[in-house]
Amino acid sequence: MRHDHSVTITEFSMVAAGIVAGGRAEPDDDDWADVGAVIRLDAARFSPDAVAGLDAFSHLEVIYVFHRAAPADTTTGARHPRGRTDWPRVGIFAQRGKDRPNHLGVSRCRLLRVVGLDLHVEGLDAIDGTPVLDVKPWMAEFGPRGDVRQPPWATELMAGYY
Amino acid sequence: MRHDHSVTITEFSMVAAGIVAGGRAEPDDDDWADVGAVIRLDAARFSPDAVAGLDAFSHLEVIYVFHRAAPADTTTGARHPRGRTDWPRVGIFAQRGKDRPNHLGVSRCRLLRVVGLDLHVEGLDAIDGTPVLDVKPWMAEFGPRGDVRQPPWATELMAGYY
Repeated sequence: MRHDHSVTITEFSMVAAGIVAGGRAEPDDDDWADVGAVIRLDAARFSPDAVAGLDAFSHLEVIYVFHRAAPADTTTGARHPRGRTDWPRVGIFAQRGKDRPNHLGVSRCRLLRVVGLDLHVEGLDAIDGTPVLDVKPWMAEFGPRGDVRQPPWATELMAGYY
Repeated sequence: MRHDHSVTITEFSMVAAGIVAGGRAEPDDDDWADVGAVIRLDAARFSPDAVAGLDAFSHLEVIYVFHRAAPADTTTGARHPRGRTDWPRVGIFAQRGKDRPNHLGVSRCRLLRVVGLDLHVEGLDAIDGTPVLDVKPWMAEFGPRGDVRQPPWATELMAGYY
């Protein structure tokens, strides 16, 4: 349906551009900063031309799929982040957990080096085998404009994340 | 195929969680900072519970589809960003243009207010009618860790973007 440009289109088919190789074998909530991994782009579809010039950037923005999230667990309403009842019950779109519609994750990581179609990264919060839908270069201007405000529970949750 | 947890899964079906209403009717490269719009989440699938607590955050991270990008124009190799031959020819994964595999966009915008399932935002670089796949709260800790480095062409390109 993605090739139909009618206004009613709501469903899209995405094909992984690559996969996370290495890093953690199992999900873990915290301490992602030092985790090294490789984003291996699909050599059947891409040549190293696809990443030409990428090494001029220090960081990547990666869109991936929480492929181990069980569809039956998908939350469309509210819940306590990480099940922590000492934190408020907030909507699924007010938190970043995996059990969300479309199971999409997005985060920033450091790019260490590019070897062919292998992007060696550090601090990517995705486990071995994670399908990667897109890789973009991080540009400083794409950060949030203006002062950032967030609730205390989010700051507590993130304290040990990276 | 998304419910098949085999290691060979590479294709995923995504359903829009909402749509951008208002803002620009046509794509334009620059000056997005002051553009106001509404992200209207799908009332057939969600209740306001889905965004409970979201208003405690100043900024959102939005994943959307470049739905007006023509599939025939998708680049899998390298090209000059914006066709500017005075900038280097770089890979599609070393730039953020719309003509990329999966046609995914992701950016940060300011959240002005939440009215039911309508998220009033400012500075979202997506046009009226854009399908939104996910909305996440921006947390400061999710920004890139460490110094950010980017090539001069990216800084030039971004000079007037927001």
